[in-house]
Amino acid sequence: MKTAASLVIAAATLVMGTPVWAQFAKPEDAIKYRQSVMFLMSQHVGRIGAMVSGKAPYDAQAAVDNAALVAELSKRPWPAFVAGSDKGAIPTRAKTEIWVEQQKFKENQEKLMAETAKLLEAAKTNNLDNLKAAFGPTGGACKNCHDTYRKDV
Amino acid sequence: MKTAASLVIAAATLVMGTPVWAQFAKPEDAIKYRQSVMFLMSQHVGRIGAMVSGKAPYDAQAAVDNAALVAELSKRPWPAFVAGSDKGAIPTRAKTEIWVEQQKFKENQEKLMAETAKLLEAAKTNNLDNLKAAFGPTGGACKNCHDTYRKDV
Repeated sequence: MKTAASLVIAAATLVMGTPVWAQFAKPEDAIKYRQSVMFLMSQHVGRIGAMVSGKAPYDAQAAVDNAALVAELSKRPWPAFVAGSDKGAIPTRAKTEIWVEQQKFKENQEKLMAETAKLLEAAKTNNLDNLKAAFGPTGGACKNCHDTYRKDV
Repeated sequence: MKTAASLVIAAATLVMGTPVWAQFAKPEDAIKYRQSVMFLMSQHVGRIGAMVSGKAPYDAQAAVDNAALVAELSKRPWPAFVAGSDKGAIPTRAKTEIWVEQQKFKENQEKLMAETAKLLEAAKTNNLDNLKAAFGPTGGACKNCHDTYRKDV
C-alpha cells in the first residue's frame, strides 16, 4: 500500500508540478498547519489592532514587524486546504464549500494576501493614520472569508 | 481585580520595556502561540529534511523558502513562554525547568536561532551538500532543547 500511495503521489507531482498535498503526512497535519498559521495571524493582527484602537501605544517598529509576519503568513494556509482535509483526527471549522467553490475561495485568499501586503506597506510609512486606514480592509478580508468558509463554533 | 491586574501589567511594562507577556490575553493563548510556531517549524524543517535525506527531490528555491520561514519562526516562540504558562486550559509539554533555568533556556534559544540562520545561508548557496551540512546542527539544536525542556507524551 505504501508503495502504491508513493506512486500516486509521484504521479500527482508530475501532473501538478508542485506536490503541495504530498507535503503533509496525514490530513490532521494539514488541518493543524492551517490552524497554526491562522492562530498566529490572529495574534499578530490583534497586536496591530491594539495599536490602531489605542489599546496599546503605537510602536512603529513593532507594527512593521507584526505586519511583515502577517503578510508572510497570509501566503501559507492555502496549500494546507488539501482535498480530503474537511475532516480529520482533529476538529476543523473549514466548511466543505471550500472544496466546491475553489475559484471563489482562491479569490478570498488573493484578497487577504493583497490587503496584508498593503498593511505592511502602510506600516512601513511609520504613520499611524496610514496603518489605521489599511487595517480595516485587512480585517474585512479576514472576516469575509471566515463568514463564508468557516463554521461557527 | 481586572484593574489591579492592569496596573501590574502596566508597571511590568515600564520596568521591562517590552510588554511581551502582556501580548497574550490568557495563558492558553501563549501556549497555543508557541505550539503553533513549533508545529510550523517542524513542518518546514521536515520539508528540508526530506530533501536532505533524498525522500524528496532537491529544490533549491523551496529549500530557501522553507529555511527562511524556519529562521523567522525560530525567533518567535520565546516571548510566549510567559511566566505562569507552564499550565493552562490546554495541555503543554513545556517543563517547569524552563522557568527555573532561564539563562540555560535562553542559550538554547540562541543556539536554535544561530543554527537556523546558518541553515538559511546554506540554503541560499543552492548547494545540496551545504544544506546537508547545516541541517544536522539545526536538528541538533531542536533535539537538545526538546530533550531538556519538553515533556514526553
